[in-house]
Amino acid sequence: MRSSSSWIKLTSRVPRHPLSVRSTRCLASPHRVHSLAPTATEPKACSKNITWHEGAVQRRDKEQLLNQRGCVLWFTGLSGSGKSTVACTLEHALVQRGHLTTLLDGDNVRHGLNSNLGFSQQDREENIRRIGEVSKLLVESGLITLASFISPYEQDRNRVRSRLEPGDFIEVYMKTPLAVCEQRDPKGLYKLARAGKLKGFTGIDDPYEPPSNAEVVLESDKLSVEAMAAELLIFLDSRGFLSCRPPASGRCAQFGAS
Amino acid sequence: MRSSSSWIKLTSRVPRHPLSVRSTRCLASPHRVHSLAPTATEPKACSKNITWHEGAVQRRDKEQLLNQRGCVLWFTGLSGSGKSTVACTLEHALVQRGHLTTLLDGDNVRHGLNSNLGFSQQDREENIRRIGEVSKLLVESGLITLASFISPYEQDRNRVRSRLEPGDFIEVYMKTPLAVCEQRDPKGLYKLARAGKLKGFTGIDDPYEPPSNAEVVLESDKLSVEAMAAELLIFLDSRGFLSCRPPASGRCAQFGAS
Repeated sequence: MRSSSSWIKLTSRVPRHPLSVRSTRCLASPHRVHSLAPTATEPKACSKNITWHEGAVQRRDKEQLLNQRGCVLWFTGLSGSGKSTVACTLEHALVQRGHLTTLLDGDNVRHGLNSNLGFSQQDREENIRRIGEVSKLLVESGLITLASFISPYEQDRNRVRSRLEPGDFIEVYMKTPLAVCEQRDPKGLYKLARAGKLKGFTGIDDPYEPPSNAEVVLESDKLSVEAMAAELLIFLDSRGFLSCRPPASGRCAQFGAS
Repeated sequence: MRSSSSWIKLTSRVPRHPLSVRSTRCLASPHRVHSLAPTATEPKACSKNITWHEGAVQRRDKEQLLNQRGCVLWFTGLSGSGKSTVACTLEHALVQRGHLTTLLDGDNVRHGLNSNLGFSQQDREENIRRIGEVSKLLVESGLITLASFISPYEQDRNRVRSRLEPGDFIEVYMKTPLAVCEQRDPKGLYKLARAGKLKGFTGIDDPYEPPSNAEVVLESDKLSVEAMAAELLIFLDSRGFLSCRPPASGRCAQFGAS
């Protein structure tokens, strides 16, 4: 698939700034050393003015670039409660408005990162832990992250919250009665669970622990998908996540007082 | 930390589009159902025109938003070969040019997602697998991902490559002689390994398998940090990763012929 000419080998230039002991790690504060000296052939415009930095790129720089603030909307609720439907609709609305998002759900996580996990209590805990850590990486890159998982145990959700900066974790509880979810039964899983063919199914023979302190509660049996997505958009906007004005204080935006 | 007034409960509206069986999953092709009907109070501008979509937001939509194409630059090489220094400098250069990046390295991965992994062969394999899966999620959100890990085994690196779309995985081999890395010894690890106080250290008593087909090879003992970052910038630009013009074909950009 790749020809040998796609292979670039760089050995021909005179060393100018060889790595030193102190230069091999990205440390806390940005530090310029010197700009790229002209080479025999003039470098392309995009490659001019490269400076060596000790410090990592800051989150606020990425947020300013995106004109938004990173956060995770953590959708929790029973199977069939509408988590992914609302998350998906919200994601479209956000992207249409120029915001960058990532949607994490069973489809892209259970078949990838967490393909080696089952459904034991221990594996469910590790499942949520890993998703939380990925969310943290995404949030720190400035993305509005939509995580859609049953995540039945409050302790697991709270552990994710505690790993993120205060305000970055927005718990969205899809409060839909079990009877409604079971009647929808989009994947036929409730039927299997009731027939005893599926063990440890949340809401049937495994507990769902409702959030005690969710930022947003949505009753999907009483509201349209669009209305719920719209309310979340208003929530994000009112909390300052949909813009990122450079502040005098150096902080990207004040976190809106509630 | 959160007051009760930060808690939003939405129950008061008349249902308009209750979730149905077929609406509970995000399917392949976007499908509009109907736009948000006016409510008693006029919705804020940001929340107007929300439409329900069945399909997930496409990667190309995010790439057009960012005006770049997602990829992972996978830096591999011995400890002290300059992976993180070059990755960090390149990240600054990319962000300064308005591109969105994520840098994955030991600092943010070993202390987070992979904090429950050690350094056995099995754990090293799982370490790289998880990083590969996170890279895939980032690339699919359009980000230019910089992954900086010794990643000594070719099989592990090739497994990551195979999980990504063709062309998305750019292997960057930091080809620095062991003697140079050992002389730099930024973390004093070679000294410990030579003294027998650190077992299974890559290059000393654990093998490093050089890439046989890396897209880019950098000899950090012969080039400055800035020159290497500049060459990678030229590489990304020449392959079309630093722009994303809407194509007639619907494909974001042609992958540059080498």
